[in-house]
Amino acid sequence: MSSILGTKVKISVFGESHGEAIGVVIDGLPAGHTIDFDWVYEEMKRRSPGRNKFSTTRVEKDVPRVLSGIFEGKTTGAPLTAIIENTNTNSKDYSELKSKMRPSHADYPAMVKYKGFNDYRGGGHFSGRLTAMFVFAGAVCKEILKEKNIFVGAHIRAIGKVIDEKFDGVNISREVIEELRQESFPVLDKAVAEKMQQEILSAREEGDSVGGIIETAIINLPAGVGNPMFYSVESVLAHMMFSIPAVKGVEFGEGFGITELRGSKANDGYYIEDGKIKTYSNNNGGVLGGITTGMPVVFSVAIKPTPSIALKQNTVNVNNEENDVLEIKGRHDPCIVHRAVPVVECAAAVAILDILLQG
Amino acid sequence: MSSILGTKVKISVFGESHGEAIGVVIDGLPAGHTIDFDWVYEEMKRRSPGRNKFSTTRVEKDVPRVLSGIFEGKTTGAPLTAIIENTNTNSKDYSELKSKMRPSHADYPAMVKYKGFNDYRGGGHFSGRLTAMFVFAGAVCKEILKEKNIFVGAHIRAIGKVIDEKFDGVNISREVIEELRQESFPVLDKAVAEKMQQEILSAREEGDSVGGIIETAIINLPAGVGNPMFYSVESVLAHMMFSIPAVKGVEFGEGFGITELRGSKANDGYYIEDGKIKTYSNNNGGVLGGITTGMPVVFSVAIKPTPSIALKQNTVNVNNEENDVLEIKGRHDPCIVHRAVPVVECAAAVAILDILLQG
Amino acid sequence: MSSILGTKVKISVFGESHGEAIGVVIDGLPAGHTIDFDWVYEEMKRRSPGRNKFSTTRVEKDVPRVLSGIFEGKTTGAPLTAIIENTNTNSKDYSELKSKMRPSHADYPAMVKYKGFNDYRGGGHFSGRLTAMFVFAGAVCKEILKEKNIFVGAHIRAIGKVIDEKFDGVNISREVIEELRQESFPVLDKAVAEKMQQEILSAREEGDSVGGIIETAIINLPAGVGNPMFYSVESVLAHMMFSIPAVKGVEFGEGFGITELRGSKANDGYYIEDGKIKTYSNNNGGVLGGITTGMPVVFSVAIKPTPSIALKQNTVNVNNEENDVLEIKGRHDPCIVHRAVPVVECAAAVAILDILLQG
Amino acid sequence: MSSILGTKVKISVFGESHGEAIGVVIDGLPAGHTIDFDWVYEEMKRRSPGRNKFSTTRVEKDVPRVLSGIFEGKTTGAPLTAIIENTNTNSKDYSELKSKMRPSHADYPAMVKYKGFNDYRGGGHFSGRLTAMFVFAGAVCKEILKEKNIFVGAHIRAIGKVIDEKFDGVNISREVIEELRQESFPVLDKAVAEKMQQEILSAREEGDSVGGIIETAIINLPAGVGNPMFYSVESVLAHMMFSIPAVKGVEFGEGFGITELRGSKANDGYYIEDGKIKTYSNNNGGVLGGITTGMPVVFSVAIKPTPSIALKQNTVNVNNEENDVLEIKGRHDPCIVHRAVPVVECAAAVAILDILLQG
Repeated sequence: MSSILGTKVKISVFGESHGEAIGVVIDGLPAGHTIDFDWVYEEMKRRSPGRNKFSTTRVEKDVPRVLSGIFEGKTTGAPLTAIIENTNTNSKDYSELKSKMRPSHADYPAMVKYKGFNDYRGGGHFSGRLTAMFVFAGAVCKEILKEKNIFVGAHIRAIGKVIDEKFDGVNISREVIEELRQESFPVLDKAVAEKMQQEILSAREEGDSVGGIIETAIINLPAGVGNPMFYSVESVLAHMMFSIPAVKGVEFGEGFGITELRGSKANDGYYIEDGKIKTYSNNNGGVLGGITTGMPVVFSVAIKPTPSIALKQNTVNVNNEENDVLEIKGRHDPCIVHRAVPVVECAAAVAILDILLQG
Repeated sequence: MSSILGTKVKISVFGESHGEAIGVVIDGLPAGHTIDFDWVYEEMKRRSPGRNKFSTTRVEKDVPRVLSGIFEGKTTGAPLTAIIENTNTNSKDYSELKSKMRPSHADYPAMVKYKGFNDYRGGGHFSGRLTAMFVFAGAVCKEILKEKNIFVGAHIRAIGKVIDEKFDGVNISREVIEELRQESFPVLDKAVAEKMQQEILSAREEGDSVGGIIETAIINLPAGVGNPMFYSVESVLAHMMFSIPAVKGVEFGEGFGITELRGSKANDGYYIEDGKIKTYSNNNGGVLGGITTGMPVVFSVAIKPTPSIALKQNTVNVNNEENDVLEIKGRHDPCIVHRAVPVVECAAAVAILDILLQG
Repeated sequence: MSSILGTKVKISVFGESHGEAIGVVIDGLPAGHTIDFDWVYEEMKRRSPGRNKFSTTRVEKDVPRVLSGIFEGKTTGAPLTAIIENTNTNSKDYSELKSKMRPSHADYPAMVKYKGFNDYRGGGHFSGRLTAMFVFAGAVCKEILKEKNIFVGAHIRAIGKVIDEKFDGVNISREVIEELRQESFPVLDKAVAEKMQQEILSAREEGDSVGGIIETAIINLPAGVGNPMFYSVESVLAHMMFSIPAVKGVEFGEGFGITELRGSKANDGYYIEDGKIKTYSNNNGGVLGGITTGMPVVFSVAIKPTPSIALKQNTVNVNNEENDVLEIKGRHDPCIVHRAVPVVECAAAVAILDILLQG
Repeated sequence: MSSILGTKVKISVFGESHGEAIGVVIDGLPAGHTIDFDWVYEEMKRRSPGRNKFSTTRVEKDVPRVLSGIFEGKTTGAPLTAIIENTNTNSKDYSELKSKMRPSHADYPAMVKYKGFNDYRGGGHFSGRLTAMFVFAGAVCKEILKEKNIFVGAHIRAIGKVIDEKFDGVNISREVIEELRQESFPVLDKAVAEKMQQEILSAREEGDSVGGIIETAIINLPAGVGNPMFYSVESVLAHMMFSIPAVKGVEFGEGFGITELRGSKANDGYYIEDGKIKTYSNNNGGVLGGITTGMPVVFSVAIKPTPSIALKQNTVNVNNEENDVLEIKGRHDPCIVHRAVPVVECAAAVAILDILLQG
């Protein structure tokens, strides 16, 4: 029920943090597309930990191995599968976590749902590590979207209360998207980027963590893509986004901010230019009635502060059913927002290719 | 692709604003549940226009007719279908709209997608009128949830910039939910309610409109309900919410606000009381790792300002492909937020029953 | 789970034999197709009882009412819904059936599954009457297939042991299909048709019933349609066929008969004619590896003898949990095979349009 | 669209005959079940080639490697994934097949569908080799069914025209199923088994091949399992069966044979014994109205003669678009029916567990 998503392009994600391997099956890709797996691997490195001082220094060698679906460098139309072997998975650090539920992690509800049989080591199937396969699948989909001149890019809109206001949802271009992709901390306003990083370092010093907001644009989608009602572009993208651990909000265009505008300001007036119908503003984020307008599809996701913090926390011990105190040891990301950027982009790429191929 | 949603409980919604009838098929309901259709009809009246001065004075007699799935007052296990006949549908007012695209309505993307064959009268299949069937389906599901002591209730969290801060996501009770249900304008802080209504009247006087935020709680769900990843409670609820016209954002618990908190504040610490595991706060909205924690499931949706306003708007005429100006006539709701409250509640009830019955 | 089927084109069938109405929602039809509802209604009359002496003399006025999805005579792309009101449903005859389970009907397993809450009158949701909506949906799909020069037609291959051998699965043409459609008892070899009818009359005289085999061809499907493995043309068609009450077998091409051939006879050798690749024989029924070959798609379904017979039968009474004897009164079809012909054709049309639109 | 099947338990099968690996993801397994992978591997060996003189002498070391979903020997509730590495895949023998379409193989329709980009080596994704993963998945499901006292077993009903008549669909027991499982050529009537084997050897000597029929029983399913109409037990099982390469027919109980019976013989009369409702005969194969009756679920599948034969065959060369002659070299099974027995059983086990867990 839970590990497969999609209508025309389906992905099936499997694995646990400390199991043998994690992987993804991508079903429904059209045949005959050349996939540059070096480019895919670069995309995956954007998510890797240890790339800068704001992430954990653990090094993951997440080199995916393609098992099926590619022949002579091209998609075959059969399911494309890749796995990443889990190596060097030291399970010792996690023994305490079997009984002490980490606040804001999946530990407790997972234990209840699976009656204690879930692999709890490192979060098991709930681990953020599985998002590496979202990136793999999405990078493959980006390669196909690229052939249709469609691009997906994101910037960090906020870290804590520090906000990057420079995004332009009407004119966002391929060039801006490609520049953002080159950066390990993709922010449009460089001065703000520095403040954001200070915010992260300050949280780390205090043994604490911070969250933030990622804003994404998908450009060059034609008008008329998507569905009314239950398979609206918003429904499909939000469904995918809320599948990413730590996402607690999704909004399109001005999102929650649109509720502060009067209709006369919120409505995106039309005009025609060179035979193409456009809107002056893009408060609706490129989607009306569930269907694309031809403007950039723009959405933001809220990423909660990393739940694993060094500070002591109140918890319960499920063994003796008593209140307890938890102190999480080891290195943990004080912020995962920048690492989540390619995850959000790639998950969106999967969803958008799925919508697009529905015709 | 677009009119059917669900896994175990599926709903199939059909109809157009000015067609013969609108309706819903509910598939997968368990057999043997008594449904009080008077109660269901009351629930539908909560959505009806013309109940107070903040809504259009059009009167809809949305009396549903049950066609199948009920025998001797109880669900049979076979699909439960209801329709509402469309009567008195004057199509004259809509003729101009065939060529002039209403900003922030589905007119333009729908025309492109369906190559001009969609029924454009009154928004056709995209009309907010179809949400009457969401309410019918959800009210039926609420009746079944009630037997399991599960209740769904909502309040208006914001109209424009006026905010009701009184909601308590940890302690929200059945009593509060039932009180809110009695009100045509459900706000927890009565002083704020008055300011909200002034905001709506002020917008109407100016020929403008306002949006707002609806906050919903589902109480008494046990811990361990839902799924990791792709069928997380958040994914399923958000998918459903973004199927409601005018919804532009969905967030759980503190949602976007959680990004402004440090982890130490955002994390919901556990404690045990009378053998039941609870959290001190509920910033995660009762869901971790996609699965319920046993705390109230809390989420908010952003409703954009009603797109139909009396003020002149820039648009294009798709017949002659020229820029044009639109002036929408007739009576329109200056605000649909209060009418959307039962829609959000009932759509949530369908999704939650679906999740719950997946076992 | 049970009343909705399809991938791109989905149908949702609802209703009970003695409920308010039966109906169907067809989701995913492309916009802009003209549907001739007179033709659709003719197709439905092919299924009606009372057309000849081999059927019950009950007269059903199964005039469907279209509720949605059609605007100015064309499909809109929104769900197309039709219902048939149930009138004159005398429930008195069925009271005994609440306790005495009719052999080979759904009564007993339905009672167990739905814990006695199912509408048992006239078979309820299990009634063959619901196949009227299969015909409606399929007739609409046939209209769209017709625009692509694709036709679906069937003949009665067998009644009891009387067999029509005249079918030619390589050369079956539109003309033959249209001729068969004109007949209330469609058999290719007219001499055999007479023997079949004698077989039916003889069964009726004895208070008994007969079954038979329906063989269907879908012509002019291009090669390359369908999917390997789980969504093979065979899987999708068989799934649909076994949804029709009384179907106990489905086979493609030579079907079970192919097991009596050596490979050298069974294999369909290729040749090329006027640039088109064809096969000399069509033992595989136009499908290899789940995908069409460009030859006619040919399949047969086994229809069991009508379970309702006048003869006394052994049964149990579920009230007192004792062995009992059942004597079914009233008029019943001694054979439903000829009435099932349009049901099989139309159900196939829905499945084939679904497969075709998946692209 | 094509490589994922199921409702509650979903399987996703991937790989190509000569690719890196083949594999399966099983989603939706309940947590906490011990799986004996030695038993699973034994089940897979039942399908292996080279076990007797009726199969190819190629030796496959199909040792599956479990990548996820198992922790401390038990299912975790997360997707269970296994792969088999493809080793020693000599692609040289297949070069001619790129241009010459093998009759009754998927070569031609696959080439059309995938525009020539499919991996044609050894049949690629269409290879019978992928059925190893059906067996893996089904063996895991059998382990879970076993805990509920449900068993799945099959015998060879026919090879060519040689028929095993000894099957008893009313009284088939666990003991019989377990005996059949011990045999590499499972037939109930040992004298018939010998004739069947002679038939295979005779076909091999002539460079030809034979097909046959496999009859399967699933015992101890309670009454009331399944669904009416679109997710009938027959629909779900037939959908799965027609996903197995070479299956051309599926029938339940007496199947096509039931059409030769009068209703009075075909109907399965009820009686009650020790408080349990049973039927005297089981012509309907344990399913009425799509729902189990509590009698054994019995079905047969027709397996066509192996398409790869040594004899010369007519074909076309798609390169020069001319008629041609094909002579397939190398060793090929003259009959795959006995190797298909565990495939049919295990595919059925997946489908039945899926139906059962739907509740």
